[in-house]
Amino acid sequence: MNRNDVTEKIIAAKVSRGLTWEEIARRVGRSKEWTTAACLGQMCFDEAQARVAGDLFGLTDEEQKWLKVVPSKGSLPTPVPTDPLIYRWYEIVNVYGTTIKELIHEEFGDGIMSAIDFSMDISREPDPKGDRVKVVLSGKFLPYKVY
Amino acid sequence: MNRNDVTEKIIAAKVSRGLTWEEIARRVGRSKEWTTAACLGQMCFDEAQARVAGDLFGLTDEEQKWLKVVPSKGSLPTPVPTDPLIYRWYEIVNVYGTTIKELIHEEFGDGIMSAIDFSMDISREPDPKGDRVKVVLSGKFLPYKVY
Amino acid sequence: MNRNDVTEKIIAAKVSRGLTWEEIARRVGRSKEWTTAACLGQMCFDEAQARVAGDLFGLTDEEQKWLKVVPSKGSLPTPVPTDPLIYRWYEIVNVYGTTIKELIHEEFGDGIMSAIDFSMDISREPDPKGDRVKVVLSGKFLPYKVY
Amino acid sequence: MNRNDVTEKIIAAKVSRGLTWEEIARRVGRSKEWTTAACLGQMCFDEAQARVAGDLFGLTDEEQKWLKVVPSKGSLPTPVPTDPLIYRWYEIVNVYGTTIKELIHEEFGDGIMSAIDFSMDISREPDPKGDRVKVVLSGKFLPYKVY
Amino acid sequence: MNRNDVTEKIIAAKVSRGLTWEEIARRVGRSKEWTTAACLGQMCFDEAQARVAGDLFGLTDEEQKWLKVVPSKGSLPTPVPTDPLIYRWYEIVNVYGTTIKELIHEEFGDGIMSAIDFSMDISREPDPKGDRVKVVLSGKFLPYKVY
Amino acid sequence: MNRNDVTEKIIAAKVSRGLTWEEIARRVGRSKEWTTAACLGQMCFDEAQARVAGDLFGLTDEEQKWLKVVPSKGSLPTPVPTDPLIYRWYEIVNVYGTTIKELIHEEFGDGIMSAIDFSMDISREPDPKGDRVKVVLSGKFLPYKVY
Amino acid sequence: MNRNDVTEKIIAAKVSRGLTWEEIARRVGRSKEWTTAACLGQMCFDEAQARVAGDLFGLTDEEQKWLKVVPSKGSLPTPVPTDPLIYRWYEIVNVYGTTIKELIHEEFGDGIMSAIDFSMDISREPDPKGDRVKVVLSGKFLPYKVY
Amino acid sequence: MNRNDVTEKIIAAKVSRGLTWEEIARRVGRSKEWTTAACLGQMCFDEAQARVAGDLFGLTDEEQKWLKVVPSKGSLPTPVPTDPLIYRWYEIVNVYGTTIKELIHEEFGDGIMSAIDFSMDISREPDPKGDRVKVVLSGKFLPYKVY
Amino acid sequence: MNRNDVTEKIIAAKVSRGLTWEEIARRVGRSKEWTTAACLGQMCFDEAQARVAGDLFGLTDEEQKWLKVVPSKGSLPTPVPTDPLIYRWYEIVNVYGTTIKELIHEEFGDGIMSAIDFSMDISREPDPKGDRVKVVLSGKFLPYKVY
Amino acid sequence: MNRNDVTEKIIAAKVSRGLTWEEIARRVGRSKEWTTAACLGQMCFDEAQARVAGDLFGLTDEEQKWLKVVPSKGSLPTPVPTDPLIYRWYEIVNVYGTTIKELIHEEFGDGIMSAIDFSMDISREPDPKGDRVKVVLSGKFLPYKVY
Repeated sequence: MNRNDVTEKIIAAKVSRGLTWEEIARRVGRSKEWTTAACLGQMCFDEAQARVAGDLFGLTDEEQKWLKVVPSKGSLPTPVPTDPLIYRWYEIVNVYGTTIKELIHEEFGDGIMSAIDFSMDISREPDPKGDRVKVVLSGKFLPYKVY
Repeated sequence: MNRNDVTEKIIAAKVSRGLTWEEIARRVGRSKEWTTAACLGQMCFDEAQARVAGDLFGLTDEEQKWLKVVPSKGSLPTPVPTDPLIYRWYEIVNVYGTTIKELIHEEFGDGIMSAIDFSMDISREPDPKGDRVKVVLSGKFLPYKVY
Repeated sequence: MNRNDVTEKIIAAKVSRGLTWEEIARRVGRSKEWTTAACLGQMCFDEAQARVAGDLFGLTDEEQKWLKVVPSKGSLPTPVPTDPLIYRWYEIVNVYGTTIKELIHEEFGDGIMSAIDFSMDISREPDPKGDRVKVVLSGKFLPYKVY
Repeated sequence: MNRNDVTEKIIAAKVSRGLTWEEIARRVGRSKEWTTAACLGQMCFDEAQARVAGDLFGLTDEEQKWLKVVPSKGSLPTPVPTDPLIYRWYEIVNVYGTTIKELIHEEFGDGIMSAIDFSMDISREPDPKGDRVKVVLSGKFLPYKVY
Repeated sequence: MNRNDVTEKIIAAKVSRGLTWEEIARRVGRSKEWTTAACLGQMCFDEAQARVAGDLFGLTDEEQKWLKVVPSKGSLPTPVPTDPLIYRWYEIVNVYGTTIKELIHEEFGDGIMSAIDFSMDISREPDPKGDRVKVVLSGKFLPYKVY
Repeated sequence: MNRNDVTEKIIAAKVSRGLTWEEIARRVGRSKEWTTAACLGQMCFDEAQARVAGDLFGLTDEEQKWLKVVPSKGSLPTPVPTDPLIYRWYEIVNVYGTTIKELIHEEFGDGIMSAIDFSMDISREPDPKGDRVKVVLSGKFLPYKVY
Repeated sequence: MNRNDVTEKIIAAKVSRGLTWEEIARRVGRSKEWTTAACLGQMCFDEAQARVAGDLFGLTDEEQKWLKVVPSKGSLPTPVPTDPLIYRWYEIVNVYGTTIKELIHEEFGDGIMSAIDFSMDISREPDPKGDRVKVVLSGKFLPYKVY
Repeated sequence: MNRNDVTEKIIAAKVSRGLTWEEIARRVGRSKEWTTAACLGQMCFDEAQARVAGDLFGLTDEEQKWLKVVPSKGSLPTPVPTDPLIYRWYEIVNVYGTTIKELIHEEFGDGIMSAIDFSMDISREPDPKGDRVKVVLSGKFLPYKVY
Repeated sequence: MNRNDVTEKIIAAKVSRGLTWEEIARRVGRSKEWTTAACLGQMCFDEAQARVAGDLFGLTDEEQKWLKVVPSKGSLPTPVPTDPLIYRWYEIVNVYGTTIKELIHEEFGDGIMSAIDFSMDISREPDPKGDRVKVVLSGKFLPYKVY
Repeated sequence: MNRNDVTEKIIAAKVSRGLTWEEIARRVGRSKEWTTAACLGQMCFDEAQARVAGDLFGLTDEEQKWLKVVPSKGSLPTPVPTDPLIYRWYEIVNVYGTTIKELIHEEFGDGIMSAIDFSMDISREPDPKGDRVKVVLSGKFLPYKVY
């Protein structure tokens, strides 16, 4: 057994039990973004969260233990994603990558926007011409150390 | 001569003239995100914008014409970016890709978040533990056509 | 169990039961193009369609539930397809890609032809020198947002 | 000098002289699809067509000779295209590839749709919800030889 | 079950029953080249051929049905083959590719040698300095359509 | 200067002087297949051949010296060729690769068909349904040494 | 002109002027590790440092301006390095990568060792059996944010 | 059974038995770095170490035998790692690779830092601004042989 | 069942029965280099050799039949090997590849060193500064055919 | 100017001056293997050797300085070599890689054969059935450090 097996079991249980990520997140007590990432094997549960997830998805004790192990991250099977929704994000990085780099450096100097001390919020933005997906990303700026 | 040559000339002129993207954007009359992307060869200028850019960067008439040609987009030289700042964005897509997919589908059903009818806003979020980069992305939801 | 397992079961059932895509599409009540794509794990069924597919292919309740989950799309195992029929399409994109880009931009300006608000129709075009495959593609033009 | 140099000169001349592909095609006397592909180095001109192109783009005699040489085809710099417009076509092949394969085989049996005995027509399809790009592809069906 | 499973069963049956491709081809009533390709999952059997193959390899009815399904072609696991015998062919394409292109274009003009309306014959060419493998390839020339 | 520069000069001279490979081969005194490969930088000329080529293409003494240097071979810019004519050959290796392997091993045992002690002959095969390209390949069989 | 041109000029000047990195670092007033990385186009100079580098390497004013621009980082031309010295480091990541991950997670929990708030010290470790290279890496631990 | 199966069993046993690498290393009698690498299939146990590991993880005699077989090394599933922690190390090699090369050559001349006669020590470096990960690498310098 | 399964069984049997390649080779009656390659699925056994291997490794009749089938060769899972010992050989080809090419061409003219009519001998070369691995490779020179 | 430019100048000078590697090596005073590798940019000259090479190839003082800089090694433009002679060596690593690994480990235990403390000797082995290329490789065995 490994973490992957547990992730697949969670996904299958979610389908067969008809759960939603929002509901799962409310039960786990964290944002729906973090909770979904954790269930999909990208984040690490604590004791209490693992127990809640265990109940929701019908996991054994050993499976719950795996939820507390730091996973080997990376959710995409190919370097360039093939799923159209995920590809659009890759395209944003490809088309706007140098733009993002220029503007962050202009504002902050040399360094990066952290993907670790990082949060994300996805919501619906009503619009008469068709609703929009609004995503807010917030990452700590980390300056390069000069030594 | 091609668009790439013009882009390189723009970047070199920005360095030697000491311009900032914010200032360039104000002169062009568009957001700093769109303007930077356009200067870096990812968007297409109209007549008036091309003239402003021509003045700012000292471009010839022929070079200004290239700014009005739809460019061949994609700003990264490799499928997986090597620059640490841009890589962090690739990592976000890699780690959170399936999460983003799940949450958008849960809220909107099958479809994608457009990377075309799309805007981006990058700003500084002051924080006592270290300022943060805040990025707001807004893309129209496009449902898959059933026929 | 995951969506892939259901797709493989559908394909195997189609062979052993001797069904045709045309017949399946008529039963599902959608075009043969959309229906085939949906059966092959690229589109998402609604309740009623899933029930019809369930009957046609002998799927369990749980398997039918998977048909209503938005799938992770992408039907090719390699970036460059090896199957000669599918490769010819890749070749069309490779040989005519810049042509398509130039002509759409000349007619519509900067933007793309949507692959989401998109339909396809494949038919036989009788020809004395050998019948032809006629494919009509229709995708909404989406202009790049300027902001 | 090689064909690539001539192609780049053609593209640059088109920009600086303000020509359109439609106009060029009318002068060459072929469809805008074939003519654009030929100008972009994917098809081969005959004597008369090369002379017309030579006049339009200001090509020398030696450059015109190159237009009559069968070019090394393939217009994309990377296996997976990065330009969003061209990528959408790659995505169509990726998402619908197996669907296209199934439906052509169901109608015609084993074989392929030719990408050589092939034509393409790109046009605007007016639509109150936003105009659409309509593309008609026609390729001869070639059955696999059994021997 | 899929076509791959049937192919693997055929290969295993050939080894355990000690059959030769020549013998199999004589029974199927086609050339040894076509028959071997078909058994290895690259061509499509008709009803009678499938029955013969079914007898030779001990296939069930369902397995025989798969032989009549057009397969997803491509017999190599990697873009550059690792098996020395198959690699030599890849090397021929690599070293002589541009030569073949030049000579076919010089004789026929722009177009291709079909790999569909195509046959192959492999035989032993006795030679005192060591026997040679003689391979005759015959493919219809297909000129590019001008439109 | 390197061999590549000489090859490009040869190709350009062939276009501007209107030579054919057949004529060049007759002058060099070798088959058109070998001569074309040699001119395209895949084979190595001897003294006399280099002089003939030098006259035909207007090469300097130093350029002729390069024709006598063993070249670094491989004529394709990408592992999977993009040119449709050359791709068809790659497809033949991909679709028929395992077939070729099986049949050569059945006839000769373990070993390979040499791509070095190898010759090729390309000719036109008249056919009422459309002329065919006939290619005869002959390579010495080399058995694996057992020691 | 771009940063790459300046980097190449710096490297060439170092060779022709016979400078050492240690000496350069002393003049710049930073560690030899940071200074070398900065000269090789991976870090960003401030005003004073750029002036010192300008003197040492004979750079023009415009070239010095480029030293103050945040560079596009990544010093390796291929994903897997070919230079044996650099490859050994890649091998350490490959062989010990999961070990490093396990031990950092065991000590610190989920998170990463920063490559930004990071320093490196390379020195000679005398050893009777052959001197050793000692490298000390120090990176801030950044825990994953839970939200 | 192969070494991979044993490695997976060890990892699963560590999770279900709640062991730590530090504890395992103490029992094995080697550093935690070497021991973890060995358990993860990158190093080779001796008789006594294999027996200790067998007890700790509940391995059969045959499984213990595999621990004494030299493993096929390399712990990463992709050339560019996707896990953020391991990627940071790849980034260090990418950003600092040429720096490391320059400084080792400046100190030692041509040669490499061994990844075989090599040790590593990972520890916590307390820091009021956030604890740091300190890694000390020590590899014998091996000069290139001149002959 | 396929040849891979037999190879894996052989490797597992060697571990559990505690055999050495030298002993196996003596029993098979061939060099240890050829025998090891054959056991690892790269060479083809004859009747008698298959029987000996069958006894040594406890193979069934069907498994022994597979040993007599010409295998699909290539023992590395990735184009660039990750195992340090095998990588060093890849590095030798990478660093010395052009050197080997130059020296063989200088001595023999255009052609190759055969990897088929080839043998290898690996032995220990005692050396007071540390024993060395001595490898002798012998391959027939094959000149390119001129025709 | 960089080391690559010097390497290209050396190769061109060798062709135009008609030098042989053997003669060059004799003048440099090292083996032809080491000298060729050094001239091709894979090894590093000392003062005296650089002066000899400077005379032989007509290098300037600055060019001679580059010969004394440790080069960035790796002589192949692609991960899998396309030149047939060099490919045969890659094939040997591919086919015999696991064999070499097994036999070195059986004789020496865990460790590698050094590619740094390494020498190579290439010679002609006369043989009535066709002369052979004999290559002797000698690399120090380096055991993995256990700590």
